Amino acid sequence: MWGGRFADGPSAIMREINASIPFDKALWRQDIAASKAHVAMLAACDIVSDGDAEAIIGGLDTIASEYEADGVPEDWDLEDIHMTTESRLAELIGPAAGRLHTARSRNDQVATDFRLWVRDAIDQAVAAVEALQRALVTRADEHADSIMPGFTHLQTAQPVTLGHHLMAYYEMAQRDISRFADARHRLNQCPLGSAALAGTGFPIDREMTTQALGFDAPTANSLDAVSDRDFALDYLQAAAQCSLHLSRLAEEFVIWASQPFGFVRMPDALSTGSSIMPQKKNPDAAELVRGHAGRIIGCLTSLMVTMKGLPLAYSKDMQDDKPPVFEAAGLLGLSIAAMTGMVEGAAFNTGRMRQAAELGYATATDLADWLVREADIPFREAHHITGAAVKLAESKGVALEALSLEELQAIDTRIDERVYGALSVEASVAARASHGGTAPAEVRKRVAEARERLGMDI
Amino acid sequence: MWGGRFADGPSAIMREINASIPFDKALWRQDIAASKAHVAMLAACDIVSDGDAEAIIGGLDTIASEYEADGVPEDWDLEDIHMTTESRLAELIGPAAGRLHTARSRNDQVATDFRLWVRDAIDQAVAAVEALQRALVTRADEHADSIMPGFTHLQTAQPVTLGHHLMAYYEMAQRDISRFADARHRLNQCPLGSAALAGTGFPIDREMTTQALGFDAPTANSLDAVSDRDFALDYLQAAAQCSLHLSRLAEEFVIWASQPFGFVRMPDALSTGSSIMPQKKNPDAAELVRGHAGRIIGCLTSLMVTMKGLPLAYSKDMQDDKPPVFEAAGLLGLSIAAMTGMVEGAAFNTGRMRQAAELGYATATDLADWLVREADIPFREAHHITGAAVKLAESKGVALEALSLEELQAIDTRIDERVYGALSVEASVAARASHGGTAPAEVRKRVAEARERLGMDI
Amino acid sequence: MWGGRFADGPSAIMREINASIPFDKALWRQDIAASKAHVAMLAACDIVSDGDAEAIIGGLDTIASEYEADGVPEDWDLEDIHMTTESRLAELIGPAAGRLHTARSRNDQVATDFRLWVRDAIDQAVAAVEALQRALVTRADEHADSIMPGFTHLQTAQPVTLGHHLMAYYEMAQRDISRFADARHRLNQCPLGSAALAGTGFPIDREMTTQALGFDAPTANSLDAVSDRDFALDYLQAAAQCSLHLSRLAEEFVIWASQPFGFVRMPDALSTGSSIMPQKKNPDAAELVRGHAGRIIGCLTSLMVTMKGLPLAYSKDMQDDKPPVFEAAGLLGLSIAAMTGMVEGAAFNTGRMRQAAELGYATATDLADWLVREADIPFREAHHITGAAVKLAESKGVALEALSLEELQAIDTRIDERVYGALSVEASVAARASHGGTAPAEVRKRVAEARERLGMDI
Amino acid sequence: MWGGRFADGPSAIMREINASIPFDKALWRQDIAASKAHVAMLAACDIVSDGDAEAIIGGLDTIASEYEADGVPEDWDLEDIHMTTESRLAELIGPAAGRLHTARSRNDQVATDFRLWVRDAIDQAVAAVEALQRALVTRADEHADSIMPGFTHLQTAQPVTLGHHLMAYYEMAQRDISRFADARHRLNQCPLGSAALAGTGFPIDREMTTQALGFDAPTANSLDAVSDRDFALDYLQAAAQCSLHLSRLAEEFVIWASQPFGFVRMPDALSTGSSIMPQKKNPDAAELVRGHAGRIIGCLTSLMVTMKGLPLAYSKDMQDDKPPVFEAAGLLGLSIAAMTGMVEGAAFNTGRMRQAAELGYATATDLADWLVREADIPFREAHHITGAAVKLAESKGVALEALSLEELQAIDTRIDERVYGALSVEASVAARASHGGTAPAEVRKRVAEARERLGMDI
Repeated sequence: MWGGRFADGPSAIMREINASIPFDKALWRQDIAASKAHVAMLAACDIVSDGDAEAIIGGLDTIASEYEADGVPEDWDLEDIHMTTESRLAELIGPAAGRLHTARSRNDQVATDFRLWVRDAIDQAVAAVEALQRALVTRADEHADSIMPGFTHLQTAQPVTLGHHLMAYYEMAQRDISRFADARHRLNQCPLGSAALAGTGFPIDREMTTQALGFDAPTANSLDAVSDRDFALDYLQAAAQCSLHLSRLAEEFVIWASQPFGFVRMPDALSTGSSIMPQKKNPDAAELVRGHAGRIIGCLTSLMVTMKGLPLAYSKDMQDDKPPVFEAAGLLGLSIAAMTGMVEGAAFNTGRMRQAAELGYATATDLADWLVREADIPFREAHHITGAAVKLAESKGVALEALSLEELQAIDTRIDERVYGALSVEASVAARASHGGTAPAEVRKRVAEARERLGMDI
Repeated sequence: MWGGRFADGPSAIMREINASIPFDKALWRQDIAASKAHVAMLAACDIVSDGDAEAIIGGLDTIASEYEADGVPEDWDLEDIHMTTESRLAELIGPAAGRLHTARSRNDQVATDFRLWVRDAIDQAVAAVEALQRALVTRADEHADSIMPGFTHLQTAQPVTLGHHLMAYYEMAQRDISRFADARHRLNQCPLGSAALAGTGFPIDREMTTQALGFDAPTANSLDAVSDRDFALDYLQAAAQCSLHLSRLAEEFVIWASQPFGFVRMPDALSTGSSIMPQKKNPDAAELVRGHAGRIIGCLTSLMVTMKGLPLAYSKDMQDDKPPVFEAAGLLGLSIAAMTGMVEGAAFNTGRMRQAAELGYATATDLADWLVREADIPFREAHHITGAAVKLAESKGVALEALSLEELQAIDTRIDERVYGALSVEASVAARASHGGTAPAEVRKRVAEARERLGMDI
Repeated sequence: MWGGRFADGPSAIMREINASIPFDKALWRQDIAASKAHVAMLAACDIVSDGDAEAIIGGLDTIASEYEADGVPEDWDLEDIHMTTESRLAELIGPAAGRLHTARSRNDQVATDFRLWVRDAIDQAVAAVEALQRALVTRADEHADSIMPGFTHLQTAQPVTLGHHLMAYYEMAQRDISRFADARHRLNQCPLGSAALAGTGFPIDREMTTQALGFDAPTANSLDAVSDRDFALDYLQAAAQCSLHLSRLAEEFVIWASQPFGFVRMPDALSTGSSIMPQKKNPDAAELVRGHAGRIIGCLTSLMVTMKGLPLAYSKDMQDDKPPVFEAAGLLGLSIAAMTGMVEGAAFNTGRMRQAAELGYATATDLADWLVREADIPFREAHHITGAAVKLAESKGVALEALSLEELQAIDTRIDERVYGALSVEASVAARASHGGTAPAEVRKRVAEARERLGMDI
Repeated sequence: MWGGRFADGPSAIMREINASIPFDKALWRQDIAASKAHVAMLAACDIVSDGDAEAIIGGLDTIASEYEADGVPEDWDLEDIHMTTESRLAELIGPAAGRLHTARSRNDQVATDFRLWVRDAIDQAVAAVEALQRALVTRADEHADSIMPGFTHLQTAQPVTLGHHLMAYYEMAQRDISRFADARHRLNQCPLGSAALAGTGFPIDREMTTQALGFDAPTANSLDAVSDRDFALDYLQAAAQCSLHLSRLAEEFVIWASQPFGFVRMPDALSTGSSIMPQKKNPDAAELVRGHAGRIIGCLTSLMVTMKGLPLAYSKDMQDDKPPVFEAAGLLGLSIAAMTGMVEGAAFNTGRMRQAAELGYATATDLADWLVREADIPFREAHHITGAAVKLAESKGVALEALSLEELQAIDTRIDERVYGALSVEASVAARASHGGTAPAEVRKRVAEARERLGMDI
């Protein structure tokens, strides 16, 4: 395979460390597609004969059927998917197989295959995130009025609606889609024809392979084209950020499902029991989504470290690009799907949520705002007055609205009876009707926009 | 500052761990700009009086002058830049200062300030990368014909031109700019008006502040708006990838500057000596650029880890968002500037480069390609024949073109005299004229396109 | 400073990227101590005269006083702490200052200084962790009987005691101390005398400086000694693991302090309020401890990436070793101190904890164990029977012990009245008296051992 | 398996995300060993009958034979290795199988299994690193006198010997062994008997299982024991640092093997060719070792991130502990083995090395040292004088020793003829005889000590 130059065969350890076929066989569809596009172009440019090209394409189709039916054979001596396929092609069609590798190198070949694979992974991620968005929007619609405590620092802060809370994740998902789209756009240039590093002297037509493989343009510099793994890093970064978003919702589900919260029951289908404690129903799927975020960050770190300080052009370190990408793609796909299932199937206990919203003086800000609005007190002063009211209520162990008007007026005489209208959780939520605020009407507007964007029945 | 509720003051350790003013004072310009936009909107919406608004804006202008002249005072009891400024405002204009914080919270305030800061950092990065591109293009133009060995695995592979090599980094820089632009676009939504987490009941006009601060739109969900640090992660990811590119060129400069290579002398202004070895001239700037890539990756890791698994909305962990972003921005700015200086000032030893290109059988592929083209031998077979020729030349300790025709024909009879025309490094380079290839004519095309895009004199 | 060899001075960008004085001035005490030890040895070995040595030592003492009083001047042209000090020494004592750098280089000098600094940081970390252990042990002692729900998956699992829970963190801290001790032991070899990279031709006595600086032995290989930053990585790894432990307790405090849990109130001195919500009391210190873990992991990542693939011996990339170590040390110190304050000051609501322990069928395992013990049923079958009992109780909305004997016997006839003795949380906790179990008596044994180890009054 | 409580079975996505059997089947040997130790203890403590214990142990032995012969079956419905084995046991011996899980939980079971696995991985790593040390010492012995340029900043600095250079890696390896040994010591406590989280009410004997499994002591706190993954992090950190050391030698081999250096030829068995360039012999094994360091760092990052902020006790996120550990162990094993092969088989071109050492004014420090020693000039002044000499030589394009005495004396009159004795590379190397220096005699001492420690024939 490497010409007649080597006296010794590769040792056992080399066979193992060098063989990428155990993982790069995942590229077989892309490899065959790229080879077919390449040889069709070689024929069109009269670099190989039409007969040889037909034989090669026929052979590649046969191989594709074999792989589809029986999987890709894993022979470490054939190193990688490229050699595995070319070697089988030689068995099938004889010496003409040797013409396929004209005007290309494994360096541009693998760069092309891997881009095609990552492009598919991006498309799958976007589709999966949109499915998650649909689930979020559906549940948000259902719960546009359901009041729950909004937390900052995991302390009860102000009442919000569950619909509003779920739509926050819709927004994150929207940015994820945008990030994947940007990655796809930047990726979509075709390296094929860059050969080993310097381009080729054969009169190839790079536009032709570019179009055949659905790329927007050929890459502009052959040294860069075979050395570049930005597209894989872009994908991993988008995947990492997406997994961070999922990890936040997972964390919330784990906390909400705990007995002291009791805000949610995860669907049985996404929970597990305990081998020792018969009463347990554990939110394992949520925890695994959270855990997978750690691993996806590890995958991103891995490839960044690998690429740092590599001189041009291709270095073999870059063979370590695929395992983290493949691993991250698998973990991300599972994570999004599991989260979609959890969002769809979560049984929210809106009673517990509303009850919790009424505790913790969640409407204290509404009192302060009322003082600003109705008594024209500067906010800072109103904040101070309200602090005193909360302190009094806390010392008496009662809610804010349970303080008498006398007690409130003892704190500040400008308070009058109308204040009680501002202190219910419903009033609080309804009042926050600024753009993007938690008022049910506002949440419904956002839901409607989202449904339209997603092509959901309105 | 936190109302009348706390019995004890914060302890010494709390003052220190809690105070962000030592670093977030870097946000002062953004904080004042956002406060001015906010109060102008409050006045326009009749939430504060015109008189109060004028007093606040005047006070903020005064404070800006003070900060510009004397720096931002660092009083840990005032915690952060927001309280530092508001406290000074109260000293300057009295209780009306307390109206500034109407209808906002530190949560949306810091989200707004930080976005504005990162947006500036992005704009600066793009300008710096373009300056680097100009340097690369200028030197590439100069060396479109200069032949050097192209390496894969740091082994001599095929001859390329230095101009082609430098233009590979132009392409990477182009992707960096694209990545920063995408980050900027995704960032450019205004969180101001999201208040603590739920929006506000005051009748604010978020479009007005959005426009005043140069954002494209207000954010669509208040919970998300105060919890989101995607924009900082997007920036750090773009910075990390840019630094990886710089680290690769830095690695090459370090290797090229070593005595056995001798391809380049770094400019004196970007080198240092040794405290003990008088002859040393060390490529410190290149090494520091390489080292800084490690730290920028550390910054990105830091913020990803911090954000993982945080429940909505704001949590104080998110105060740890700024140090890694500020650090990365500083390191990136220095790295790009230093690399620009190195590219501009590098003294390339084209004689050494050409000489090295002639060693190492760099034109062996040209022999194989010749066999394919002229003798219609399948590439794989041609590759094998060439391997035998290299082995013979190596055993004799001579270059490929120093083998006699008899010797070559003993390996394969189809070789004839014309083959010698393919074996010079000039012929090799000139032949690789495929799109993106290393042929000088092709490199000049790419340089011309780049000059035009950069508005350079053509 | 770099001899007479450079035509140009370093450019502005180089001054900035190259200057380490802004951060390495933190090494001044170590640098002066090492210089004094070095020159005393040079004099003892007759490499410099006693008079010169005295002058140098006197000058260094003067400089130390100046630094102590006024701080270290930050002149970028003097690059680093070594040159800053040597330059001042020359001002103070004239040309004899030039003899200090005999038989050493900045490479072994900085390696020595940095080891000394990290050794101090380790000693401080151990002392701080022991203070945290004292706080943990004191509170565990107090709460050896306080029953709380033990969680797995944040689901109520089995009753445990708060004392047992706190002692889990004592164990983690114990491993942290062990890890720091191992790092210290591995670090404690003296690189001074390795010179630039090859050792020195002067007849130095490395044992003498080794002992003077409190090291165990001189390093054994000069190339390794100036290239090695394992000691910094060992420190960062120990710091990262310690911060991970702290982050887990911080997470628990944040969750426990939330209104639905209400297990704990953080001390006022380690909490903050909100600029908008007057009722808020946020567990900021806990959140910052959790956030700092992210940054410390970032610091470790940074230095690992920087060191990867560096050829021997010293490369300037290694100047990027100090910022992450200094940053991590500061963050770790604050984190441990804040956590110690939180553990000491936390107001545990043991009533809420006990109440929560009684919910969630936490003693279901005790029922299963009872069936195994008293009815000799294989555990798997007992687990199944108990599952049915939990299901029945859940459907009736009652606790396990509220099921009647008839109801239980309808599930399995082997259950008799004695079972009710196993179903209280007290019985459950008391029963788990295996080594390391949660039984109060067992917890008190562990506490007593810990108090003895820590030299606490027993 | 989870009792009779769940209405629905786990969905398809849950089966996939939840199943750990695809990777944790690697624990089968440890799982069976721990189960046998557990049941033997249960019988000794009269918790299960001797008959049942014998049946269980016999069944487990049968299963071990089956796994050994046919591999572990991968049935996702059985989730993990523990359930897979217990389910098969039930098939083999009937209901008595259900007694095995008495007084334990999967939580302490997996913690025990995984510790045993990591302990084996540590032992294997130490053995592999010692094999590498043997290779390093053997080659260092052979090349104790071979002169090569010592580099700092990859610039020729001072002559060193190749033996000295190789012994630097011996020292790193020695620290690696020490780090693995520390990790092993800290790991070696037995969690079995901690049960789910709280210990157990059965009268077990934890000392007995501790001893049977080769642990030093039982863990002291059951909550900690099932939540702790420090041992895995300790292993990953030791692996990461080891891989960083390997990456540095790999980087050197890649650079040294490049044509301009030509210091080394990698063995054919650890190199590969090119699919397009017939002359190529690429140092792939070295590049893969360098690349694997990136992935091992990614593995460490992954587990740190996963563990951050997890509340006690076991959470399912912790199932993500095994893939990074298994991956890192595989990569590390291959990397050490490949590096051992490279060190053993590297063909050093000592001629090229010596020639390079003579270039680059590598003995300039020797001139400066001579001036200090013989002319009693302060080092700083001597450094300056030498700088002028290098400048002159450089401008004339000659070596330092090719300057005439007149020329040298024109720079400084104190120079006399004896100086030429100091300027050869042999003299330079021989002079650096300080402890740990590069003098061949000194290198031989270190080699002898190392051979003795490693039990190598002296």
